[in-house]
Amino acid sequence: MADEPEAPLEEPLGLSPEHVQSVIQAIDENDLDGVRALVEPLHSADVADLVEQLEPDERRILVDVIRGLVASEVLPYLGEALRDDVVEHLGTKDVAAALAELDVDDAIDVLEDLDEEDQQEVLRALPAFERLQIEAGLAFPEDSAGRLMQRDFVAIPAYWTVGQTIDYMRQTDDLPDEFYEIFVVDPSHRPMGTVPLYRAMRTKRPVLIGDIMESEPILIPAEMDQEEVAYHFQQYDLTSAGVVDESNRLIGAIMVDDVVDVIHEEAEEDLMRLAGVGESDIFWTVAETTKRRFLWLLVNLGTAVLASIVISLFGATIEQVVALAILMPIVASMGGNAGTQTMTVTVRALATRDLTVTNTFRIVSKELVVGFVNGLLFAALVAAIAAVWFGGIALGGVIAIAMIINMIVAALAGILIPLGFDRFGVDPAVAATVFVTTVTDVVGFFAFLGLGAWLLL
Amino acid sequence: MADEPEAPLEEPLGLSPEHVQSVIQAIDENDLDGVRALVEPLHSADVADLVEQLEPDERRILVDVIRGLVASEVLPYLGEALRDDVVEHLGTKDVAAALAELDVDDAIDVLEDLDEEDQQEVLRALPAFERLQIEAGLAFPEDSAGRLMQRDFVAIPAYWTVGQTIDYMRQTDDLPDEFYEIFVVDPSHRPMGTVPLYRAMRTKRPVLIGDIMESEPILIPAEMDQEEVAYHFQQYDLTSAGVVDESNRLIGAIMVDDVVDVIHEEAEEDLMRLAGVGESDIFWTVAETTKRRFLWLLVNLGTAVLASIVISLFGATIEQVVALAILMPIVASMGGNAGTQTMTVTVRALATRDLTVTNTFRIVSKELVVGFVNGLLFAALVAAIAAVWFGGIALGGVIAIAMIINMIVAALAGILIPLGFDRFGVDPAVAATVFVTTVTDVVGFFAFLGLGAWLLL
Repeated sequence: MADEPEAPLEEPLGLSPEHVQSVIQAIDENDLDGVRALVEPLHSADVADLVEQLEPDERRILVDVIRGLVASEVLPYLGEALRDDVVEHLGTKDVAAALAELDVDDAIDVLEDLDEEDQQEVLRALPAFERLQIEAGLAFPEDSAGRLMQRDFVAIPAYWTVGQTIDYMRQTDDLPDEFYEIFVVDPSHRPMGTVPLYRAMRTKRPVLIGDIMESEPILIPAEMDQEEVAYHFQQYDLTSAGVVDESNRLIGAIMVDDVVDVIHEEAEEDLMRLAGVGESDIFWTVAETTKRRFLWLLVNLGTAVLASIVISLFGATIEQVVALAILMPIVASMGGNAGTQTMTVTVRALATRDLTVTNTFRIVSKELVVGFVNGLLFAALVAAIAAVWFGGIALGGVIAIAMIINMIVAALAGILIPLGFDRFGVDPAVAATVFVTTVTDVVGFFAFLGLGAWLLL
Repeated sequence: MADEPEAPLEEPLGLSPEHVQSVIQAIDENDLDGVRALVEPLHSADVADLVEQLEPDERRILVDVIRGLVASEVLPYLGEALRDDVVEHLGTKDVAAALAELDVDDAIDVLEDLDEEDQQEVLRALPAFERLQIEAGLAFPEDSAGRLMQRDFVAIPAYWTVGQTIDYMRQTDDLPDEFYEIFVVDPSHRPMGTVPLYRAMRTKRPVLIGDIMESEPILIPAEMDQEEVAYHFQQYDLTSAGVVDESNRLIGAIMVDDVVDVIHEEAEEDLMRLAGVGESDIFWTVAETTKRRFLWLLVNLGTAVLASIVISLFGATIEQVVALAILMPIVASMGGNAGTQTMTVTVRALATRDLTVTNTFRIVSKELVVGFVNGLLFAALVAAIAAVWFGGIALGGVIAIAMIINMIVAALAGILIPLGFDRFGVDPAVAATVFVTTVTDVVGFFAFLGLGAWLLL
């Protein structure tokens, strides 16, 4: 149990580029013992990073050298993009043997991301008991608490003493590998409270568990979405939490380290979605990357053509006043940026639940005022630039009015579009960017060119 | 110790909009007992959310009703934007009295975000001992491990038995409120290992601590940046970690719940920076919000004017072929979006350390190929649209070539600009967006209009 090597005390933590280079060199020189010696002192998480850093050919050699270690310890740390590849290289038999040894939640974590065919093959190769356990986990919806939880936990009755509890834990083998609290349950296995380990440890043996437990613990329904689970862990500073079924019976426990991964995933998702990348990963192949990006760029092409159609309405005006063509990107670009600012703050405030029905009106009003004030300021600036550049006061007036209009529209679009998506249950991060910039492009071009046609000809 | 009310078992977790409405109604009716009754069952984190939801006037009334609770329990959960306001309303004396009761890390967390003047006032009002402790914490650089850590931890020698350790913890009052591992230190207080509580709890009394400890624990230097701390917690699935000074002596411990907050903060920072909002908060006042957004929009205005100057070089061409003015936003917009996609993936990969010196060349090559392939596909699409719309094959050819050029440039700019920032130690999220879109705008307009002037006239 003791002396499991983690990062050495004196060396910098993590995987250094020099270490990666040494491994690559050893692989190139076909020095397999050298590879093993370099990899063995590493933490499994760092080995996973190492696997990700290598070229496909080197990667296969490395995986062959440390097959056992990879299958059992490294697979859970490996990113989704490479997992399929590594699982296929290891072979379903070896993977199944390794998964049978893992905690059920880690095994599910590895399995759920595999493609359907590999998943079924691995499941068939598993021993019956482990297969049933994993299938029970996979029966919970994707991204739910049921998939995140571990099935082992410590549950005891409230009438036990601290001494009895400690003796029970010393004698029983069937306990989770890691746990931070003891659950107190009633005879029908419904949680009545929890005792943090540090409290149990500091209490004298004769004291009753019921007297030191936290009653009314925060419990997570098994169907709860992982994003919601992460919210509760963050909001209430949880280290672990019990998971209950529909009859409020304790069926598992979620640990904070798995929630930390969820928080990372969800933050990444929002970032990627706002940038129109959907899911993404730098370890994807060229074909996957091209395909995913193509789809979003296609949507963007549609909105760009829409903007061009608006411009084409004023083709004759542009022929006469070419300054309009020169200045029109400024109006659209400023609107697009102001809209993106408001939208990003809104999407984030929705994710962190700072924006609610209670304060929506107040926040919308504020954004409107901010848009108006910045619209005025930039209207003055841009009008001055236009007037000096093209020597026309009227042109300055046109761009000023168009700027104010577009900045106000940007503020409204930036907050109302994500709010609208959210109210209809659509993730506001997914499509807000394209809608907001379409609005600011169309309004920007229309206002500027329309005013130009009206006032300058 | 027991029965601290958290979220009730049967009710939905968190703060419901209906609950907020009831509080507002009670405040409006001046029913202060009603307010108190509604607030008292809530978790402090939810009370903080409630404070944030209210209008300034209502907020002050609520804070007055629950002054003691707010000062001691709620302040650490309150967002930065409102903390100054609430601290000023509570008065520095009450705040100081409350801070003296908090853990040092929580007190520092509250204090460090206050404006300089309030901070000094509160510090002066603190009892000498607490002031010195907090000032010692504030002496660590902002966002460092030293500010995140708590000063209390359990440290014992390796020659103690499990029984001695348990007895020590039962007898000593001077232990942290919450802890998940016991540190094993040598006589000069350097950490030799750690024992997770669940392991100590499951081991029989006569066993030596030295025999069950994890040697080579992951330790955090006090000056380490919190982003790096968060990386280590995530990478190695930590629940707590010891903090050491320059001589490798144990001086504190960081708990995962504080790291979860850091992960949220850092993810938010990247998101906001990429959108050009810098720091932001929906609870900021109109003046603050306007000012911060103005600065970024001003930078954007500069780049928009640059793009306009490029267009103005081809004013004569546009006058003759107005279709160029109509179509030019398509080339720029597609480039901008493709560049933003690549840039976002790059910024994220740098933050998660997936993009390293080892694989930079491979990933850059991949992005180049993706940009080229999508460039070809969209060149064909856009050429067809242009040819049909304006009936000119030559125009289609011009936009096709410009599109391919700009998509390749977008891919290169999207990855090389953030990489360059990162190599020079600048946060790639801060300014990458504006640089990338400037490049794609300028190149897009120049390539399209330049080719148009050359081939169509």
